[in-house]
Amino acid sequence: MRNLDENTITDAVLARHEHAPDERLKTIATGLVRHLHDFAREVGLTEREWEAGIRFLTEVGHITDERRQEFILLSDTLGLSMLVTAMAHRKPQGCTEATVFGPFFVDHAPEYRNGDDVANGARGEPCFVSGVVRGRDGEPVSGARIEVWQADADGFYDVQHSDADTHRARGVLHSLSDGRYHFRSIVAVPYPIPHDGPVGRMLEALGRHPWRPAHLHFMITAPGYERLVTHVFRDGDRYLDSDAVFGVRSSLIAQWIHHESGTAPDGTAMTTPFSTLEFDFVLSRSS
Amino acid sequence: MRNLDENTITDAVLARHEHAPDERLKTIATGLVRHLHDFAREVGLTEREWEAGIRFLTEVGHITDERRQEFILLSDTLGLSMLVTAMAHRKPQGCTEATVFGPFFVDHAPEYRNGDDVANGARGEPCFVSGVVRGRDGEPVSGARIEVWQADADGFYDVQHSDADTHRARGVLHSLSDGRYHFRSIVAVPYPIPHDGPVGRMLEALGRHPWRPAHLHFMITAPGYERLVTHVFRDGDRYLDSDAVFGVRSSLIAQWIHHESGTAPDGTAMTTPFSTLEFDFVLSRSS
Ligand SMILES: [Fe+2]
Ligand SMILES: [Fe+2]
Repeated sequence: MRNLDENTITDAVLARHEHAPDERLKTIATGLVRHLHDFAREVGLTEREWEAGIRFLTEVGHITDERRQEFILLSDTLGLSMLVTAMAHRKPQGCTEATVFGPFFVDHAPEYRNGDDVANGARGEPCFVSGVVRGRDGEPVSGARIEVWQADADGFYDVQHSDADTHRARGVLHSLSDGRYHFRSIVAVPYPIPHDGPVGRMLEALGRHPWRPAHLHFMITAPGYERLVTHVFRDGDRYLDSDAVFGVRSSLIAQWIHHESGTAPDGTAMTTPFSTLEFDFVLSRSS
Repeated sequence: MRNLDENTITDAVLARHEHAPDERLKTIATGLVRHLHDFAREVGLTEREWEAGIRFLTEVGHITDERRQEFILLSDTLGLSMLVTAMAHRKPQGCTEATVFGPFFVDHAPEYRNGDDVANGARGEPCFVSGVVRGRDGEPVSGARIEVWQADADGFYDVQHSDADTHRARGVLHSLSDGRYHFRSIVAVPYPIPHDGPVGRMLEALGRHPWRPAHLHFMITAPGYERLVTHVFRDGDRYLDSDAVFGVRSSLIAQWIHHESGTAPDGTAMTTPFSTLEFDFVLSRSS
């Protein structure tokens, strides 16, 4: 283990993991070291470029806090998140597809009842969202835990605002006995992922835009079913074919229907414009 | 760019870099995305493992500050640093070999004159270090800037102590007109790399020890010559064949000679035990 050169060092590192007690960790470390070294050899990574990489990762680390997750953003923009999601959810035909988790989920979102306005003051055109949660055989799933989160009309999630402790356009509700759910929120708009940090500079240097098509995030869990993490995308959005994080699936695109005023689906008399969105989810039975 | 799956996403990400203005950055990003995706596909990275990876990198980022560089430690322990160093310094025969930079370099080390004690109070047996800086044709290099840094008898660098603003066992001096340099310091001892953080936990999980064989760090620069970043290792050290960061080269191993007491090479009358170390450096002409 002396005098290692660019050709011998990879095996030397792997030999050091020979007695790793956890086989799975050993497999992952082996693949990681092999590909990391292959990458460096293949591009002929220079010392200056290595230094720039260390600096970049340091900046990603330092901008990350409880409200901002720049490492997830990095994984998302490099397509790693969607790749892992795709591998994890080779769903049986007919189930709702999964997509990326994203960096804006937070724990302890407030609980709501069906019909409540989860916007909680978030700016945006009112939107009435409803649908049914079913299993693959068509059976309604009652009591499914439905967590929803979205950006406001300015393209920001609540956690990106200075009063980040107030949850807005984010909440948890449960499907009714017939599997139905319905709540009021606001219309989703396209937004740029946070691009004032290292990942934003990376995208710019690569000639990429930071925009995501308009979407609502959903996470649905129910006993006996696999957890579903997904979005509902808004049909017609200009960024559907260039999502900065590669998350769009055709089956997740839905119509947001615009109404000038009138009676909302839940009976509310609306004197201002509003939208409606109907989307049904089909869960996969857990094995 | 919709409905990307594990097989199509890599090309989709690469297509997004088509108009990257910097060809070199594009090359690096292409290699990185290819190998990152291949790694994830090859090991079948699960969502939980991805989450653990995000958490790990977040911890690496948060423990990193002006005095601790956990990303360099990570690169060092994965063998990436030595790989990059090896590629950068395919030196002409006869020149001093390079090795890893390490995480303990700091800017603005104090200036010393030949003969000074750079220990500046660091604990350890006195060690008198001397040698000559030459070019490859044997010509002495005068005025070479020699920066040295090392751990103390407890295995800690100055920056790891609570009074980290006091530089100890770290300094800059310049070679004399005949290329010679000499200074007093302390004897280097083996030390574990900082292992109370995420990289330490990684090593433990992989069944690896965190120790480095005893060494002095040198960085030598002189007009007309390539910068040399290297160590001098101590012969006989038990970790020479299992350096945690893979940096040992046989040509960099030297004898630390122990003396019970007597006259040091610079004429100092020593009533306590001390060591001497002589090491010559050969610089490569810059092209
Ligand atoms: Fe989002
Ligand atoms: Fe060191």
